[in-house]
Amino acid sequence: MSKVFRTGRVIEFSDTDAAGIVHFARYMAFMETAEHQFLHSLGTDVMFEHGGNRIGLPRVSASCDYKRPLFYKDKIEIQVRVLRIGTKSVKYGFRFTRGEEETAAGSIVCACCLINPDEPMRSIELPDFFKELIGPYLHDDAAP
Amino acid sequence: MSKVFRTGRVIEFSDTDAAGIVHFARYMAFMETAEHQFLHSLGTDVMFEHGGNRIGLPRVSASCDYKRPLFYKDKIEIQVRVLRIGTKSVKYGFRFTRGEEETAAGSIVCACCLINPDEPMRSIELPDFFKELIGPYLHDDAAP
Amino acid sequence: MSKVFRTGRVIEFSDTDAAGIVHFARYMAFMETAEHQFLHSLGTDVMFEHGGNRIGLPRVSASCDYKRPLFYKDKIEIQVRVLRIGTKSVKYGFRFTRGEEETAAGSIVCACCLINPDEPMRSIELPDFFKELIGPYLHDDAAP
Amino acid sequence: MSKVFRTGRVIEFSDTDAAGIVHFARYMAFMETAEHQFLHSLGTDVMFEHGGNRIGLPRVSASCDYKRPLFYKDKIEIQVRVLRIGTKSVKYGFRFTRGEEETAAGSIVCACCLINPDEPMRSIELPDFFKELIGPYLHDDAAP
Repeated sequence: MSKVFRTGRVIEFSDTDAAGIVHFARYMAFMETAEHQFLHSLGTDVMFEHGGNRIGLPRVSASCDYKRPLFYKDKIEIQVRVLRIGTKSVKYGFRFTRGEEETAAGSIVCACCLINPDEPMRSIELPDFFKELIGPYLHDDAAP
Repeated sequence: MSKVFRTGRVIEFSDTDAAGIVHFARYMAFMETAEHQFLHSLGTDVMFEHGGNRIGLPRVSASCDYKRPLFYKDKIEIQVRVLRIGTKSVKYGFRFTRGEEETAAGSIVCACCLINPDEPMRSIELPDFFKELIGPYLHDDAAP
Repeated sequence: MSKVFRTGRVIEFSDTDAAGIVHFARYMAFMETAEHQFLHSLGTDVMFEHGGNRIGLPRVSASCDYKRPLFYKDKIEIQVRVLRIGTKSVKYGFRFTRGEEETAAGSIVCACCLINPDEPMRSIELPDFFKELIGPYLHDDAAP
Repeated sequence: MSKVFRTGRVIEFSDTDAAGIVHFARYMAFMETAEHQFLHSLGTDVMFEHGGNRIGLPRVSASCDYKRPLFYKDKIEIQVRVLRIGTKSVKYGFRFTRGEEETAAGSIVCACCLINPDEPMRSIELPDFFKELIGPYLHDDAAP
């Protein structure tokens, strides 16, 4: 039985645009923060030291489907799932809900990279400890 | 021979994040502004009056693939193509280049909606004048 | 004995810039959100209906002194005080602390305005109920 | 006769908020970008190498007075003046105009700091070359 990480946030006025709703770019930041909170809940982070190296997980793609607008003061929940654990990348899925209502769903793909200072960044395999930490949150569902 | 709309921008310090590069959410705003500039170049906009109604084109999905990072002061070009003209929606494709290098590619799908004040928003067919304006920029290429 | 409203927030990655710290413009949004949370705690808001009118409190000036940088994941507290209740305006003061350390201090001045639809916006006197709600948070201290 | 640096920008949809106007925090980024463009026009930048050191000019305070709202698609000019050249700091003043109309005025104070990697940041005197470059833009007017 796969796990889901859940986090909440409240829409701030600065999240909105002149259409009176949350600007669509803000969902990307909301997804990223939910991903980071998920990793923190597991005792890790989006950048960490491992085996004498500095490792990071920069995003290589992101997408979002907008179903219902969000407004100033809305209380939302963001669910985080792991949709794919690749050799060198991980895909997260996100669902935005306001009460019973799904308002948006998106995904982010991150590549595992060496980010040592004074070295060119290059992709490497996801460390085993990381795959084990996020494994329980892996879902079959390929769609976010 | 399909047309491409091109616009430039220069990366500002406030576009960057602590990884030293442009934050991935900013690309969404960059794509949207390029879309708006494209529409302005055609004499229209993302919201307009038509046949006594107020019509808008809110985004229903957005995605971006990040290929190379962008940095403070980078001069980039953003190409805008029309990838699909549906009955009630339009899909735009965007390519980010820095010199000869493609740094990112993304897409936005907008739904055509009535946005009259004091009426619930609802989707409608794209007006013919709008389809005719953007038609010359339609490309076969389904991928952004 | 004047009251102080306190709220917390955690720095998100999207709040940072390429200097590795929270971008200075974000403090403005942080102050505004703290102001809104303060007003919500009193059962009111930055826009409200009163006496058949729609009233808003747009900002007419804002300032911030930056004392120590803030970083990704920092847990901060923001204190809100009322520094002046004028006839038609209100000035709020904000202190940012991380643990025992003050990291920044700022202020926002808002004008009380009629914002009825289809009428030009114009400044009006602060309603008595609003002055009474925020009165207990008024501090002598003229500096933020 | 003191000089004024002038730059333009066009308001983007993502600059706006649910009040239908440019969010007040965005003016801070607009002022910063105008400052950077001013420095670039002089052949320098907000961070540079000098005498074997890395020097930066982080902001220590910022303020803005908002006089008239700005809207999506507004074309604005931002004027940059130098209001004070201190031993270790510099104060810039900014005026926002839309056509003949002044819409806002603000200021930013930057401290000159050593920002060598692996050293604690500390304030130092402004290099002479920098003072000479910005000197022609110094105005008596203490208010922005």
